[in-house]
Amino acid sequence: MSTPYDAMWEKLNLDLEAHAGLLEVLGKFYGDIYLSQSGRLKGMEYLDFVLSEVHGLRIKELQEAKAQGKKIIGTFCVFVPEEIVLAAGAIQVGLCAGAEAGKEAAEKVLPRNTCALIKSFVGFKLSKLCPYIESCDLVVGETTCDGKKKAYEIFADYAPVYVMEIPQMKNACDRDLWKAEILRFKDKIEALTGNIITAEKLKGAIKLVNDRRRVLQRLNRLRAAVPTPISGRDVILANQISFYDDPVRFTSKMGELCDELEARVNRGEGVAPKGTARLMLSGCPMAVPNWKVPFVIESSGAVVVGEESCIGTRNTRDLVDESAETLEAMLDALADRYMKIDCACFTPNRERLDHIVEMAKELKVDGVIHYALSFCQPYTIEAYKVDQTLQKAGIPMLAIETDYSMEDVEQLKTRVEAFVEMTRS
Amino acid sequence: MSTPYDAMWEKLNLDLEAHAGLLEVLGKFYGDIYLSQSGRLKGMEYLDFVLSEVHGLRIKELQEAKAQGKKIIGTFCVFVPEEIVLAAGAIQVGLCAGAEAGKEAAEKVLPRNTCALIKSFVGFKLSKLCPYIESCDLVVGETTCDGKKKAYEIFADYAPVYVMEIPQMKNACDRDLWKAEILRFKDKIEALTGNIITAEKLKGAIKLVNDRRRVLQRLNRLRAAVPTPISGRDVILANQISFYDDPVRFTSKMGELCDELEARVNRGEGVAPKGTARLMLSGCPMAVPNWKVPFVIESSGAVVVGEESCIGTRNTRDLVDESAETLEAMLDALADRYMKIDCACFTPNRERLDHIVEMAKELKVDGVIHYALSFCQPYTIEAYKVDQTLQKAGIPMLAIETDYSMEDVEQLKTRVEAFVEMTRS
Repeated sequence: MSTPYDAMWEKLNLDLEAHAGLLEVLGKFYGDIYLSQSGRLKGMEYLDFVLSEVHGLRIKELQEAKAQGKKIIGTFCVFVPEEIVLAAGAIQVGLCAGAEAGKEAAEKVLPRNTCALIKSFVGFKLSKLCPYIESCDLVVGETTCDGKKKAYEIFADYAPVYVMEIPQMKNACDRDLWKAEILRFKDKIEALTGNIITAEKLKGAIKLVNDRRRVLQRLNRLRAAVPTPISGRDVILANQISFYDDPVRFTSKMGELCDELEARVNRGEGVAPKGTARLMLSGCPMAVPNWKVPFVIESSGAVVVGEESCIGTRNTRDLVDESAETLEAMLDALADRYMKIDCACFTPNRERLDHIVEMAKELKVDGVIHYALSFCQPYTIEAYKVDQTLQKAGIPMLAIETDYSMEDVEQLKTRVEAFVEMTRS
Repeated sequence: MSTPYDAMWEKLNLDLEAHAGLLEVLGKFYGDIYLSQSGRLKGMEYLDFVLSEVHGLRIKELQEAKAQGKKIIGTFCVFVPEEIVLAAGAIQVGLCAGAEAGKEAAEKVLPRNTCALIKSFVGFKLSKLCPYIESCDLVVGETTCDGKKKAYEIFADYAPVYVMEIPQMKNACDRDLWKAEILRFKDKIEALTGNIITAEKLKGAIKLVNDRRRVLQRLNRLRAAVPTPISGRDVILANQISFYDDPVRFTSKMGELCDELEARVNRGEGVAPKGTARLMLSGCPMAVPNWKVPFVIESSGAVVVGEESCIGTRNTRDLVDESAETLEAMLDALADRYMKIDCACFTPNRERLDHIVEMAKELKVDGVIHYALSFCQPYTIEAYKVDQTLQKAGIPMLAIETDYSMEDVEQLKTRVEAFVEMTRS
């Protein structure tokens, strides 16, 4: 079936046949998991539309921006400071990393014992399935885990890669290293774009990204209501789309969604029957279209009311201080804000344990599902400490380790159902 | 069977029965792999003796040192600067991490998908099988990989743990961070021992550790002769024992071994028949008693002539500059020397690729066996780049991924034999 985007995809050197197959599967998957829900907010139509155009209209926008001389920066991690990219007049997008397509190709260059997210982005590139990667002038990796750190070395054979070093502790020397890395990144982006980052431009970019964080914070505050007024899946989708949609438009549309949600909350309406178990997700990021676990949970007598995740509060909890007036002070504010991220790449990572308990209590959850991608050592190992900490707080936890395949869906459902049952007894 | 050390082991709170079983298996294993060799140097008797007393006499020495007020520092990695420990009058020992004993206990707190080395040290502690860990006043970990970094957080529930941060790149800000980490470590060790590290003491310690590196460098130069004058297993043993034997005594004894080896080389004598394939090992460390792969190789028509490994040249190649006279200059010399380590924790890690090719050429090898522990992401992923680089240099490589179990010995033997055959065709 031909589409208005075929010529663009061909120009981007995608594997057109495989790509068409991918979009078809994605459409069906989205229909089953998203469009089948009842009682959705009208404002979700915007996200449905953006998702339906994920490889179409948004890519067209990126191509148009490129034609006007703008640069496209692809990323995989919440540590890459988008404020720098925006201040240089470039566009930052999260890259495809949430589907199994391309797994076989990835396993030719990576060990099979590599997490699904890493195999996914390498596979998407090798199989020519991701129009975002193909649109990128630079792909920015980071050293958050061994898997990504070493995979970027191989990825660099196929794409223009730049890697930011993320420190592993939070001492003064780590803050120094991170500040130096932000400066190195600024130089790189200025050189790539040919634009100098001024205090004025950076101030605007900080405000813009903070505004997006603020609207997602508002969404999280509203969705915490009892009864639950929006499905976890829908909130996850909003967080996922925040990584690649135009930030101004996205923030405005999410504001409208929040207004509608607020009215619903005020009416005391919910999407799940009274007494549905309230669960929180904690752990690894879920990139589009990795909706397996939220779907399993919400098909098992529970609703997801919070995501302690990079695609969730880890990305939106902290704002950059907006009071700085000089470029130097703004760069310091950026360094400080990003150092607050409680990624499992840090040791120790007590902040994360505290945040999880705090969030679980605020959201009045019946339990926490710890979600880790198989072979993700930082999160699979940290799960033990999370469990210890939640046990002390009297909050039950179920640890799930999985990948992007659908083979374990029934098994996961059985485990989640048993967990939900247990939280009620 | 009672031994003269039973009371000591009991006082160290070892599981006496399980420990006796471990020593029995170790003794048999050592007999099969080491004592069965023919044509061994007389000087190897010292190493045989040290190994036979690995949990006996050496532990007794450590206990005696402790009784005199000395502190024992346990480590798992070549990044921990022993010079600092020695300069403070303390003793540094490598900890048990090379056997499967305790695996079940380790898997209760760590994911099964964790490398054998990490499961080993956690298991040894949880199962009360390692008299070294029980003798330690401080266990010093490091952030070289996600697995260890996160496992130390759990290990800290059971032992006094201190973690050094190892940078992930080699830019100026990384050197700054590493220098700060050395200073933090110095403060910690001074506080622990109550001894101030003076320039004079540090100068002596630098010389002492360099001397041990120099004698192991000499061993490596001599063993490179054709025909091969000493088995790879024996050289690996010397490297392994260097981590826990008294450094002065060890260096002296290895000097004698080298004298004997030199005479043998001058006589043109070898331990392997002429035409035996010369292979080099490259990759992960092999802690005592992890001799599986060297044994498999040397039972398959080949001899190991070099180890590009932490238990090998990664630990001995670079000396600390001895010309510094002030404490500050010595600390800088230490920082510089340790930053040269070409561990797969760095990205990029071009130095390692260059070193491997250089070493393979110098040693005139027929091929390289890349050895990686399963689930060791830095080395399993870097293996791809090593293979690419060796291919370009026309040197064949076989990638082995394994753990500490004996189940795959026959399968490995078949693969190594086929590889040896291939290098000759």
